[in-house]
Amino acid sequence: MNKTNSLSFPLAELAERLGATLVGDGEQRVTGLATLSDAGPEEISFLANKAYLKHLATTRAAAVLLHPAHAGESPVGTARLELDNPYLAYAQLSRLFDPLAARDSIGIHASAVVADGTTLGRNVEVGPQAVIEEGVTLGDDVVVGPGSVVGAHSVIGAGSRLHANVTVYHGVVIGERAILHSGCAIGGDGFGFAHDGNGWHKIAQLGGVILGNDVEVGSCSSIDRGALGDTVIGDDVKIDSQVQIAHNVQIGDHSALAGCVGIAGSTRVGRHCMLGGGVGLAGHLTLCDGVQVTGMSLVTNSITQPGVYSSGTGAMNNALWRKNAVRFKQLDDIAKRVARLERDNRS
Amino acid sequence: MNKTNSLSFPLAELAERLGATLVGDGEQRVTGLATLSDAGPEEISFLANKAYLKHLATTRAAAVLLHPAHAGESPVGTARLELDNPYLAYAQLSRLFDPLAARDSIGIHASAVVADGTTLGRNVEVGPQAVIEEGVTLGDDVVVGPGSVVGAHSVIGAGSRLHANVTVYHGVVIGERAILHSGCAIGGDGFGFAHDGNGWHKIAQLGGVILGNDVEVGSCSSIDRGALGDTVIGDDVKIDSQVQIAHNVQIGDHSALAGCVGIAGSTRVGRHCMLGGGVGLAGHLTLCDGVQVTGMSLVTNSITQPGVYSSGTGAMNNALWRKNAVRFKQLDDIAKRVARLERDNRS
Amino acid sequence: MNKTNSLSFPLAELAERLGATLVGDGEQRVTGLATLSDAGPEEISFLANKAYLKHLATTRAAAVLLHPAHAGESPVGTARLELDNPYLAYAQLSRLFDPLAARDSIGIHASAVVADGTTLGRNVEVGPQAVIEEGVTLGDDVVVGPGSVVGAHSVIGAGSRLHANVTVYHGVVIGERAILHSGCAIGGDGFGFAHDGNGWHKIAQLGGVILGNDVEVGSCSSIDRGALGDTVIGDDVKIDSQVQIAHNVQIGDHSALAGCVGIAGSTRVGRHCMLGGGVGLAGHLTLCDGVQVTGMSLVTNSITQPGVYSSGTGAMNNALWRKNAVRFKQLDDIAKRVARLERDNRS
Repeated sequence: MNKTNSLSFPLAELAERLGATLVGDGEQRVTGLATLSDAGPEEISFLANKAYLKHLATTRAAAVLLHPAHAGESPVGTARLELDNPYLAYAQLSRLFDPLAARDSIGIHASAVVADGTTLGRNVEVGPQAVIEEGVTLGDDVVVGPGSVVGAHSVIGAGSRLHANVTVYHGVVIGERAILHSGCAIGGDGFGFAHDGNGWHKIAQLGGVILGNDVEVGSCSSIDRGALGDTVIGDDVKIDSQVQIAHNVQIGDHSALAGCVGIAGSTRVGRHCMLGGGVGLAGHLTLCDGVQVTGMSLVTNSITQPGVYSSGTGAMNNALWRKNAVRFKQLDDIAKRVARLERDNRS
Repeated sequence: MNKTNSLSFPLAELAERLGATLVGDGEQRVTGLATLSDAGPEEISFLANKAYLKHLATTRAAAVLLHPAHAGESPVGTARLELDNPYLAYAQLSRLFDPLAARDSIGIHASAVVADGTTLGRNVEVGPQAVIEEGVTLGDDVVVGPGSVVGAHSVIGAGSRLHANVTVYHGVVIGERAILHSGCAIGGDGFGFAHDGNGWHKIAQLGGVILGNDVEVGSCSSIDRGALGDTVIGDDVKIDSQVQIAHNVQIGDHSALAGCVGIAGSTRVGRHCMLGGGVGLAGHLTLCDGVQVTGMSLVTNSITQPGVYSSGTGAMNNALWRKNAVRFKQLDDIAKRVARLERDNRS
Repeated sequence: MNKTNSLSFPLAELAERLGATLVGDGEQRVTGLATLSDAGPEEISFLANKAYLKHLATTRAAAVLLHPAHAGESPVGTARLELDNPYLAYAQLSRLFDPLAARDSIGIHASAVVADGTTLGRNVEVGPQAVIEEGVTLGDDVVVGPGSVVGAHSVIGAGSRLHANVTVYHGVVIGERAILHSGCAIGGDGFGFAHDGNGWHKIAQLGGVILGNDVEVGSCSSIDRGALGDTVIGDDVKIDSQVQIAHNVQIGDHSALAGCVGIAGSTRVGRHCMLGGGVGLAGHLTLCDGVQVTGMSLVTNSITQPGVYSSGTGAMNNALWRKNAVRFKQLDDIAKRVARLERDNRS
């Protein structure tokens, strides 16, 4: 699809949109965005990381976004859009070139099933085979992709996009400008059972899920509904693919969760937190604002100080690992023997 | 949806259903269920954990489920339903207030595709855009949610509910009262390939999947079909979201698997086992009955004794962790040096 | 479904297809494939692992695939198909008995939505409730299962099968003979955001996803589209269920990724690599050809030598684990104390 779009912008317009200082021909048009090494003569590129400085001198790009400090290093004849935060400008520019953003609404597809008693805003799109159950409210410009299902009495805020085959259960509230990717499920039952000594009795999950504004949820991720009370995801929370968020979890504004994160029930994550890929948080914890946890770490205690936290051990050659891993089972014994040696030496 | 339900029960009826001793006005009606701190004057609450005793004295709930031992600590004027296992009673009560349970069957939706040669029980619901392939049997009161697909010749027992966008492949047998959540896939191919020295040759997965009665499967979980013979999930097994169960795994009755668990091929988990979030079990293992594995542990050997098992290391400050993690690669060396020191001291 | 198929093959035909030496009655027919212990008198079995030799003597199978070296150990009266690689022969045979392979194409189901401007090869099947968006190309013999969605301008090569409820986004290119399992999502947005000091700005993901020939993707797995440039999966790459592949990852030909693997952005995995279940690879790494990583290991550095790599510690009794895990936080201290003891002893 990116191959077929016919977007084209003059550099002067881009400079104005980005608040950049243009050095070069403002009437020159660019038709795409690419890395310094891949960009062709009709594309614009950017330098956001000094590691790529080596590619700047040889780029074939028509123009480059960069910090003024690097202006001297760009090729003669390549236009420059100079600004303080080229990575941020790249983000803004990327959305201009997004073919999805340029698509016209198809309205309500003939094959979609929209129940009676729904409230649809202006310019709503409901794709083929999608289902909107009774009592649902879709804000202006909402897009519900093919095969997606929005459960009874749920509310989806203006400008939100559900890609194909997304499921939003009943009684879920989603803010504005959400992006929900395919295969994700918002509002499935939390994992709650009472044991009678012999087996399990289901606890109906009577709460809902509330997503703030500007939330993104990746492919195949799941956010479970609350047992009593709601699971709450703050504003501007970014959730990657294959993430599991259990019932009654709360995630503070502007936090980001990388792929395969799992958060157990009732845990509260602060604002501006970042959880690396595969991180696991046990249940009923509190992480304060500004906590970062590195990939595949397990957190079993609350964290009260901002900072970076880790667990585990990095991969090594299997033969070396086998020798060390078996010693891990003796670690307490080794520690005691060291203490004994110290006592013996002292006496 | 929970906001719009108009369920209401007199306390006397609830006490009778739960086998509780009612202290208070049996004609008083309650319209919902909430925690002690959140409950309003028309709601019922419960005390199942002493950690919440502090909220009992100040609850605004109309009535409280509790153990008789705590009767004296509930507010004067708050009705009491006294019984031995308040948590179990809460589970029972939660299902009374579940709006899904109160929904009428919509029957076969006009947009659903039901193949010829299917066997449908009484009161079956097949939601919008759902697909029931040839030869399928759906028991009485089965609900197949919007967009869900049931593959050819599969059987789904009475009272089971597939939420929206569930996939059941061909040749799968599901017991009674199953609950399958959105995005889950039951019966995809197991991961089986033969290598010819150059590349992979697919092994068709000719077995099926059998789920017992009262099984729940969370959102976006997958249970693969057997290579030869079936993958078998026992009765009353509870599976959370984002769980992967490989081909020919067997899970014993009443076991519970928390979110993000992964079980490799042909492993057998006993009855009444509990696997914490993110636990991984290697293939071809046997775990006996009554095994508990704590979160994110890796099990690479069979377990023959009931009990609690763990692996890994909890998260710590990253600076401390870096120092310790690098030492892990020296652990065998450290152990040998300690032994040498002991020998030297002895000699 | 396996119960209802009526496939039946004479042993002579099977021997010819497999290039095996038949010892026994070539006209005898077999109707299925089973393990040595489960096979009935109309089925064929195989011995591919010496661990199952004990079952060979007592099998009731009509015939057995085995290496000539084990011919003497099979029961008198059981036909033999002798060849060098019985496991590979089992793979080939399994596909003969696959009921899916024997199904006739249903063509384009009346309930499917196929946009104008698509290119469909010969014998294409588009199942009930599936959606094919504009500009899509489906090669010969492609099967798109019920409820699956293929996004605009994507290309799916000849002989590929999308099971039910698969999502392929726009601008994705899939090679020939792919198998995509239910709930998987190919082409969702990579996880890319720029931070402005206060919050996140989305980076539109303008790249695509390219899958080579003979790729399999398991249930509920996700492969994200590139930010700029494509995510690239080589030929004959096998991906299990619940796997997450981030944007701009590259996987070399013939590599295999077991369940629950997560690979962060821009990492390159070589050819003939094998990643065990739950393995995590950090971003921007390079793994050379022929790397194997054992289950649940975390890789945070590039690997330049083929071989087997591991991290973590195996599960142990929780009481023992608690003592050792707490010592892990003291490991650097213990190492320093051992060095000090050594110095003291030497002086």
